Amino acid sequence: MRKKVVAGIDIGGMNTRIGLVDETGEVLTDSNIATNQYPTSEEFVSAIYNSIELLLKNPDMPLSELIGIGIGAPCANYHTGSIEGAANLPWQYVALSSMLGEQFPGVPIKVTNDANAVAIAEMIYGDAKDLKDFVVITLGTGLGSGIVANGELIYGHDGFAGEVGHITAVPGGRQCNCGRCGCLETYVSATGIKRTVFELLANSTKESVLRNTSFNELTAKDIHVAALNGDSVAIRAFEITGEILGRSLADVVAFTSPSVIFIFGGLAEAKDMILKPARENMEKYLVGCYKNKVQLKPSALGNKDAGIAGGAALIWRDFV
Amino acid sequence: MRKKVVAGIDIGGMNTRIGLVDETGEVLTDSNIATNQYPTSEEFVSAIYNSIELLLKNPDMPLSELIGIGIGAPCANYHTGSIEGAANLPWQYVALSSMLGEQFPGVPIKVTNDANAVAIAEMIYGDAKDLKDFVVITLGTGLGSGIVANGELIYGHDGFAGEVGHITAVPGGRQCNCGRCGCLETYVSATGIKRTVFELLANSTKESVLRNTSFNELTAKDIHVAALNGDSVAIRAFEITGEILGRSLADVVAFTSPSVIFIFGGLAEAKDMILKPARENMEKYLVGCYKNKVQLKPSALGNKDAGIAGGAALIWRDFV
Repeated sequence: MRKKVVAGIDIGGMNTRIGLVDETGEVLTDSNIATNQYPTSEEFVSAIYNSIELLLKNPDMPLSELIGIGIGAPCANYHTGSIEGAANLPWQYVALSSMLGEQFPGVPIKVTNDANAVAIAEMIYGDAKDLKDFVVITLGTGLGSGIVANGELIYGHDGFAGEVGHITAVPGGRQCNCGRCGCLETYVSATGIKRTVFELLANSTKESVLRNTSFNELTAKDIHVAALNGDSVAIRAFEITGEILGRSLADVVAFTSPSVIFIFGGLAEAKDMILKPARENMEKYLVGCYKNKVQLKPSALGNKDAGIAGGAALIWRDFV
Repeated sequence: MRKKVVAGIDIGGMNTRIGLVDETGEVLTDSNIATNQYPTSEEFVSAIYNSIELLLKNPDMPLSELIGIGIGAPCANYHTGSIEGAANLPWQYVALSSMLGEQFPGVPIKVTNDANAVAIAEMIYGDAKDLKDFVVITLGTGLGSGIVANGELIYGHDGFAGEVGHITAVPGGRQCNCGRCGCLETYVSATGIKRTVFELLANSTKESVLRNTSFNELTAKDIHVAALNGDSVAIRAFEITGEILGRSLADVVAFTSPSVIFIFGGLAEAKDMILKPARENMEKYLVGCYKNKVQLKPSALGNKDAGIAGGAALIWRDFV
């Protein structure tokens, strides 16, 4: 019998990762293309097609049967199967599922934003198998979210629900890429914590190893390492980030009352350095009826392959 | 054939209204009891039972068959059928559906909070018949909300989802009954607009008819009448209320991306006086992908009977 596999695709601003995924979420083989080397979306989709064909011909994958293609991408619309208005991709609009569908006739293709894909992966392979109401918050360059209620992911009437990164955390606060001010992701994300570090460096006279790095060079990982080494500015930056996250999560709970909120992505690797102040502040700001009920914990999915497995989960969901 | 009816019950802090409702949402006959005259919840539930029995014996209602009882109440838990921790009722806990179930064996009984009941009524009898993703905001003494996504009301893991009145609208803002500060309902509700009027009276020297009324005497209706008569303080209070509502609705959209947000309740009667600034500010604060897509409009349900019809809708939903 041929082994059933799903192609999972994780489209990012820099890299697009493509893998073949089995029903347990394991990435059997994968490859990588540089998203921004393709002048047109046609060439980009063509490169994805070639990558999938090559992976299927991998001698380690004999007789595999492609049963579907699932894609996580920024600004992806589940209802239309398209990328629409992505600020950090070379093309504003990509009719992903129809273009790829021409190359793979009869193969089901599903598309959603990257955070929603992670939420589905959490349902299929992760710690949310038995949960009907949960939320995934992804902390990367920005802050993404996937909201599940009544056992179903919320896509909204237009396919764009779940932009928790763009709720107002601080009225009149920091300028956001989206054109608004005070968005949650300007405080809580890899970029957000950098901005907090620079605010602390500006406002205090504390010594810090972070005073030797430029804004463009500084990474969230540098801040994490500095905090682990006892740098007080870095430690305070994680506390502030956790506090603002926690206060906003209290609002998240007031909407859909999830039993668990999973935190996923690079910043989540700092674990209690961010999760402890987040938990404390979430409890502080929760309305009485929600207190001491909501778990806040790191995602059980490994960061490395979750993007690919998440895309594939969109398809596996209908089969397992 | 006996005419099928549902008992719809709307439990409020002062009054509890009980009616018999047909499948179109029409309240055929109804009565009223004073909620706070009953020292125990047993006596209260007993009075509800007696009222339903009396209504069924009404000579105008020959041969009606009670097919279910649906109840909207503050702090009502859909999953358990109980009222749990209601601040403005005489009893902290009422096992409504099990107590009433003993009196009406075999009759299905459903309970949810009042705003959720209005949202279901909007789905069954109102303007949301064809909508899968919408939100109802009820403006009364407080601010309630019912959120529908993927065609289902969101109850959350604990039955308490949809407390949009208690998201933080102004960090560190007005003191709320819930023990927090800055909750949306401290600004946007009948009580919220009174507080805004008193802030304006304190901060400005403007003449206003509202300077002659005490806080306890002042009603949202007085403010509406004053605004219609051109009182500048009252007009400004509606604008501010609408602006804060609109900014928070932009956050609501970022969660579930509804196609329509319905505004229900006393304050909604001021129509464009509150809805125009709300619409303008919602659009101003919406992230790009949501702009010019979301309708904000008054509920099509009449205020008078919507509580009773909303309770009944919980049952009719399973029959029509």
